[in-house]
Amino acid sequence: MADPRRRRSADRSAARGESRIPQLGQRSVRNPYPPMRLLSDDQIEAIHEASLHILENFGIELMSPRGLDLFARAGAKVDRTSQTVWLDRGFVAEALKTTPESFALTPRNAQNRVEIGGDRINFTLVAGPPNVHDMERGRRSGNMRDYGDLVSLAQHFDCITMLGNQVCAPVELPANSRHLDTYRANLTLTDKSFHVSAIGRGRALDGVRMMAIARGFTLEEMAADPSLTTIISVNSPRRFDGEMAEGMMTMSEHGQAVCVTPFTLMGAMSPVTLAGALAQQNAEALFGIVLTQLARPGAPVIYGAFTSNVDMRSGAPAFGTPENTKANIASGQLARRYALPYRTTPGSASNAADAQGAWETMMALWGAVLGHGNLVYHAAGWQEGGLTASFEKFVMDVEMIQHMIAFLTPIAVDEGELALDALGRVPTGGHFFGDPHTLERYSTAFYQPILSNWQNFEAWQEAGALDATQRATGIWKKALTEYRQPPMDPAVREELDAYVERRKEEIGAGEP
Amino acid sequence: MADPRRRRSADRSAARGESRIPQLGQRSVRNPYPPMRLLSDDQIEAIHEASLHILENFGIELMSPRGLDLFARAGAKVDRTSQTVWLDRGFVAEALKTTPESFALTPRNAQNRVEIGGDRINFTLVAGPPNVHDMERGRRSGNMRDYGDLVSLAQHFDCITMLGNQVCAPVELPANSRHLDTYRANLTLTDKSFHVSAIGRGRALDGVRMMAIARGFTLEEMAADPSLTTIISVNSPRRFDGEMAEGMMTMSEHGQAVCVTPFTLMGAMSPVTLAGALAQQNAEALFGIVLTQLARPGAPVIYGAFTSNVDMRSGAPAFGTPENTKANIASGQLARRYALPYRTTPGSASNAADAQGAWETMMALWGAVLGHGNLVYHAAGWQEGGLTASFEKFVMDVEMIQHMIAFLTPIAVDEGELALDALGRVPTGGHFFGDPHTLERYSTAFYQPILSNWQNFEAWQEAGALDATQRATGIWKKALTEYRQPPMDPAVREELDAYVERRKEEIGAGEP
Repeated sequence: MADPRRRRSADRSAARGESRIPQLGQRSVRNPYPPMRLLSDDQIEAIHEASLHILENFGIELMSPRGLDLFARAGAKVDRTSQTVWLDRGFVAEALKTTPESFALTPRNAQNRVEIGGDRINFTLVAGPPNVHDMERGRRSGNMRDYGDLVSLAQHFDCITMLGNQVCAPVELPANSRHLDTYRANLTLTDKSFHVSAIGRGRALDGVRMMAIARGFTLEEMAADPSLTTIISVNSPRRFDGEMAEGMMTMSEHGQAVCVTPFTLMGAMSPVTLAGALAQQNAEALFGIVLTQLARPGAPVIYGAFTSNVDMRSGAPAFGTPENTKANIASGQLARRYALPYRTTPGSASNAADAQGAWETMMALWGAVLGHGNLVYHAAGWQEGGLTASFEKFVMDVEMIQHMIAFLTPIAVDEGELALDALGRVPTGGHFFGDPHTLERYSTAFYQPILSNWQNFEAWQEAGALDATQRATGIWKKALTEYRQPPMDPAVREELDAYVERRKEEIGAGEP
Repeated sequence: MADPRRRRSADRSAARGESRIPQLGQRSVRNPYPPMRLLSDDQIEAIHEASLHILENFGIELMSPRGLDLFARAGAKVDRTSQTVWLDRGFVAEALKTTPESFALTPRNAQNRVEIGGDRINFTLVAGPPNVHDMERGRRSGNMRDYGDLVSLAQHFDCITMLGNQVCAPVELPANSRHLDTYRANLTLTDKSFHVSAIGRGRALDGVRMMAIARGFTLEEMAADPSLTTIISVNSPRRFDGEMAEGMMTMSEHGQAVCVTPFTLMGAMSPVTLAGALAQQNAEALFGIVLTQLARPGAPVIYGAFTSNVDMRSGAPAFGTPENTKANIASGQLARRYALPYRTTPGSASNAADAQGAWETMMALWGAVLGHGNLVYHAAGWQEGGLTASFEKFVMDVEMIQHMIAFLTPIAVDEGELALDALGRVPTGGHFFGDPHTLERYSTAFYQPILSNWQNFEAWQEAGALDATQRATGIWKKALTEYRQPPMDPAVREELDAYVERRKEEIGAGEP
């Protein structure tokens, strides 16, 4: 994965004076505008009340004896036969008292520390697809080589501040230990924060321990100054899987962040109506969030939302729809009602890195930004409703994210910006190209795209008439040549490798 | 243009039970959310003050003796040698007292009446490109056949409530009389409101007179109940072309709407800074708006904005950029400061109906919607920064506009929508597909796209693996078979034809 030829090739490009892919260079982005409000205060309260009704009367199935114990000890109504927990409003309110409004995650490079909450917005690499696609090699199963390339791309682009869980599944590796290989790739090819898999206690703990090695931290130090997140997808409606619950509690116990995300596709796993889906999402999210606080009061936790609709003719999931966009905005209102950091997603159902991929992602991305998502998950590379990590879509998404970040820079209005001197100097019908006011500012005045092409038609034709998807191929290839593996102390690398080997042996011998 | 074969073909499709392209069926769209604010009140006032400084101290060049007379008679400072007008703040404030906050335009079919102002949002067909493109026939000069097809498409889709000025230039027809052919096509192939060309008094008057014939109105009745708009593009910086000014005054005198749009590309025709470009835009727009009120107090008028940036390496215009998006939102704040209806544009510089076309259009379209544009000009079919009307981009744009309209439907929260009955009925881990709550609502619960494809990868591959651009070709072709020419009284048609013939003779004989 860390191909030394790349570095040499990049050095040669630099020597030839070729320009690098332009970047904004921002590590931490703030959303300076007030969140959009689609729901009135009364509507938010009605959804809140409906979600309490669900928790109080219908209950949540929690397939984890340890989780049921936690709830029972804290005084919740628990039925161990049906593995159901009912929470009354007082119980929920009490547990929510300890959730932090925002928190930081610090990876092995402290400069890549991310803040989750408030007006911060973080964009992550796509997570979880079984497949990979690029325009030259076509569609294929996830594998470790592509895994390395994709996390290297995420490392390279400043606008991606975190990796998600496994950017693709490396299916050539044993399913029960491949998390060790992907964590190692995350830790050696990047120095950004990442999401661990929390399917079971073992995978979560391996992530915490490997990050502890990379930072030279004890587990106690990790708990006081966390690095990692996990996403807990609820088996909606109203069911928490046992392994997921174990992973979630493990992460919370170790002070790492948990994002609880109900999987509420309207018409399938939730009501066909947005208000109903949001009520269900809210109930399920609050239930998981309460569990994190029972596991460790004050544990960092994120309100996750993934409400979209399905195609009612086929049952196929859809993303970037008007309903999905509304849900992305309204869910932010719900998260802020509980003073919780908010996770959302700019998805698309398109099977190609095409115009549909762009407009669906843009719809949902605007929802994510207007809804003040703090963690914009699956923000780069998502294709086929999440079934494929696409190299070209990754480049398109980086372009769209950079557009958004540039949009989030407030307008300055002062004497220099108002340019009255220049406006008085340039004659009627003239132009500002050569005016000193322009010359002083032109090189940084506007966002410089990485993929948008502004040539006129004739120049574009002469250059091969490549559409955006075709041009994207050249850009991810160039980015891989520009990529630099972040340095790591050889002793740390050795310790990491030794940990991976030992754990693979243990897992091979049947240990969890 | 009105090909009778189309009707027969559509009848056969209907007989075979083929489904029609889904539409929202909404004729008038409201924007129910508060406008986004990027500028503080203080910043708006600073831009307002800067624009008054421009009008008071730098002046505007007006290449129209009649326009200069109007200003001089009203007491403005006028220099006839340099054709410059200076306006003081009192003069501007006085003239703005008569502008209507909103108004209606009624075409020959009163059901297609549009309201311009307040929370209404109208999307128009692209206007003015010299070229046309589709994926089968490639790029070609504008011509009357394509003109007819494009206005027929605009007629067909409910979400397009107005035509702009000439969707493409029919270059095979004489330049000085082709406006008669395009007005006739607008009036016979559609029954929606359209924009006339106001390059000179003659073209504007022809539009007003032909619409009067189509409505059976006198010119006085037309003035009391207007039908038409024109766009006046300012020759920025600070110059109004004489012919344009004549057209503008003619439209205002006849009570028709005028949209004054400065052409403020940052770094070229305006300062490289957004605040400076907005100050210039505001000064130029206010100047034109004042002139409409001098021509006829109370004449309907629209604050037009077209502030975007250029590529500073080549000078090429760019659209859908972060700067353009901010301008689309901030300009709405300026327009509302003067209680004026607001025109904006969702452009793109892409040379193809590709992903770039989609993300750039989406960026600017969100700006248009969040900025509460009342007239979203060039909203369907714009390609190559406005140099080409694209059939495939038209379909993509209709899809994006329909997404927006569906997004603008507020979220309902009531007992039925909260779905607590269904949430109690469906078991944990179950699904809502067969629940009565779903069955009652599923057919209308979600926006149904015209171009987005939600098939899974395998089904999509089996269907030919067409990307969105390729699929769009089939959709505009299908729409043309579904299109129905709106009926017109043969006597009216005869009168229109006679008017066109007479005017062509007059123009051929040298009359304006």
